[in-house]
Amino acid sequence: MDLTSRAAALDTEHRDTDLRHLFRLPPGVYLDGNSLGALPAAVPGAVHEVVDRHWGQDLIASWNRHGWWSAPQRVGDRIGRLVGAAPGQVVVGDTTSVALFQAVSAALTLRPDRRAIVIDPASFPTDLYVVAGLAELTGHHVVTASPDGIPALLDSRSDVAVVVASHVDFRTGRLWDLPTVTRAAHRAGAITVWDLSHSAGAVPVELDRHEVDLAVGCGYKYLNGGPGAPAFTYVGHRHQAGYVPAIRAWHGHAEPFAMEPTHRFADDVARARGGTPPMLSLLALEAALGVFDGLDIDDVRRRSSSLTGFLIEALDELAPEVEVVTPRDPEARGSHVSVAHPQAYGMSQALIARGVTGDFRAPDLLRLGVGAPYLTHRDVLHAVRQLRAVLDGGEAEALDGPRRTVT
Amino acid sequence: MDLTSRAAALDTEHRDTDLRHLFRLPPGVYLDGNSLGALPAAVPGAVHEVVDRHWGQDLIASWNRHGWWSAPQRVGDRIGRLVGAAPGQVVVGDTTSVALFQAVSAALTLRPDRRAIVIDPASFPTDLYVVAGLAELTGHHVVTASPDGIPALLDSRSDVAVVVASHVDFRTGRLWDLPTVTRAAHRAGAITVWDLSHSAGAVPVELDRHEVDLAVGCGYKYLNGGPGAPAFTYVGHRHQAGYVPAIRAWHGHAEPFAMEPTHRFADDVARARGGTPPMLSLLALEAALGVFDGLDIDDVRRRSSSLTGFLIEALDELAPEVEVVTPRDPEARGSHVSVAHPQAYGMSQALIARGVTGDFRAPDLLRLGVGAPYLTHRDVLHAVRQLRAVLDGGEAEALDGPRRTVT
Repeated sequence: MDLTSRAAALDTEHRDTDLRHLFRLPPGVYLDGNSLGALPAAVPGAVHEVVDRHWGQDLIASWNRHGWWSAPQRVGDRIGRLVGAAPGQVVVGDTTSVALFQAVSAALTLRPDRRAIVIDPASFPTDLYVVAGLAELTGHHVVTASPDGIPALLDSRSDVAVVVASHVDFRTGRLWDLPTVTRAAHRAGAITVWDLSHSAGAVPVELDRHEVDLAVGCGYKYLNGGPGAPAFTYVGHRHQAGYVPAIRAWHGHAEPFAMEPTHRFADDVARARGGTPPMLSLLALEAALGVFDGLDIDDVRRRSSSLTGFLIEALDELAPEVEVVTPRDPEARGSHVSVAHPQAYGMSQALIARGVTGDFRAPDLLRLGVGAPYLTHRDVLHAVRQLRAVLDGGEAEALDGPRRTVT
Repeated sequence: MDLTSRAAALDTEHRDTDLRHLFRLPPGVYLDGNSLGALPAAVPGAVHEVVDRHWGQDLIASWNRHGWWSAPQRVGDRIGRLVGAAPGQVVVGDTTSVALFQAVSAALTLRPDRRAIVIDPASFPTDLYVVAGLAELTGHHVVTASPDGIPALLDSRSDVAVVVASHVDFRTGRLWDLPTVTRAAHRAGAITVWDLSHSAGAVPVELDRHEVDLAVGCGYKYLNGGPGAPAFTYVGHRHQAGYVPAIRAWHGHAEPFAMEPTHRFADDVARARGGTPPMLSLLALEAALGVFDGLDIDDVRRRSSSLTGFLIEALDELAPEVEVVTPRDPEARGSHVSVAHPQAYGMSQALIARGVTGDFRAPDLLRLGVGAPYLTHRDVLHAVRQLRAVLDGGEAEALDGPRRTVT
């Protein structure tokens, strides 16, 4: 069957998970949902309601009347369902950087007599910076190891307090083996902090089932929460009594309105809350999560795997000169496909000019992210055909100038 | 002249700074702008534009095309104008709690051989919690002193690294003497970190003129940025080269898109940026700041002083049984007036039922906040008359039940 027929057949096969009607989509094909998810159609109205009615009319009363105060945990529970966390273990509020700092600092206090932090050197840079900065502050040392090397490393040492790893590599799209790494950490007595930024909303995580200790993740990628949507933090029930993050803000106090001079942590996941969260961004995220209502993360994953698999198939057939660096094994793949090419920057620019938005990651990667609910196999094929045209026309070379890109 | 005529005369005198037409105001009298500022009329349209057009249509391209990337510094400069900071010294992004943690942690690295942190024990609780938590992490010790006692304290010891103080006391509305405390800190070789949450947008601060070192403040009170609007951080030019906050996130990197494994701070105030900020909340704040266009903070202050002075005058005349705990000297007063009363909680509830919104602070304070640009002397008089009716009708006593309030 040719690719056009394959795309049509696959779209028919996956029609139940085609949720394009729940989004407002731009013209062209948007393959950057791994950076900023598309706009769910329910969001503009919800934000309008929050601004005009909650803030504008009810003002301060909205904290109770419209559930602002409970939002960090309410939205947390909705994300929890997508990452396999039972209610009462997830809160939403700060940036991913702050959430990670808080989680790792708390992990260190759970293992006070151990001095090493292990982190994947291919982590998103902020994760490396946050861990290095924290280690400098506390006198810990940082050891780097790729997730597939972490189990062997942990078997050889007993000083590891915490293992920080990303579920999906932001460059290659490789999906790491979370259960195996988590089990190895537990054998070695270490705490795991998983960064789910590139898996939440796209890949099943099953935090509870795999007894993950702590996790954080981004709200604006596959959860479609909007630019800079607040991050989430998962604190497994068994760690909540001992969860002591470095920044102690008043929303995490046992009695926030007692205005006591000394902090006392709430005895549940509320202790992971920070200062007053950005409510417009937080409630936009809440409205965005409605996309997943009635959907299981396994449904999303099935569609995503089919789309990324077909994307690789189309690249192999139509653009064999680009190197697919993302695993071909669907079990080892997140929800984006990266290709390496010396003119990757120019390729990304030329594709944008043709209405296909992916993004560039230095030095030579073009990332094609698949927000599965709002993309079809036809979209994917169209994108690859545009890439073929870019290569044929030498467009990438022409545009491979000074690099500026933003996630 | 009776109070009704006084109110009318004062409203006429201050008609140039009556900016009610720039807000969408609820019915009644809203005296809680010290907690959540009213909605500026320009905000709903601006947020709609950000959601529908920037996010919905241009998606990731908005980081450059619509100035998302530059927003933390652009909005910072606009706030800078209101707190007396020349451009290039203010950024916006995280919560006030995180901003304070970052600023104090950086202050400690500027004075590496000193072990004490001085803080006002009457600070907003988060400030106390943040400082105590940081001190625990770094092994510093915390000394408490009221701002009027700080100069004497500093003269008696040489181990103080940093002085943390609030410009306006969140309970009493007392405006502290920032220049004197700052000079005393400098004489003692200490760094000052001012919390401007209750002064930014209401009281002149003159950060540059008084050579303040670092400062943070809230976006959602007198700046009217909306619920949980991001906080700002001021880093004086002379400290920027040495400003090293604990959390090192990628937006503060010298070359964020080089995706280097090691953090290198930007060489300007960008180094104070955190992770990806909550753009909807940040851009709502930016739109809200338009209220201050063409206005000097001294204009706002003149109106605010007149309103709070008239509020005290009306309280004295109409409700002499409540105790005004806010200084009567306008030079020592911020922009809210607090009264102490055993039934303060019931009073606040009864006033809300009568359309007058203030707030309660344990154990016995009713706070009446004055968002000067959108309040009149007639409003203030109406509020005090309602309070009189509450007292006459025994309404406060009837409502003084279980306490639940939210800022």
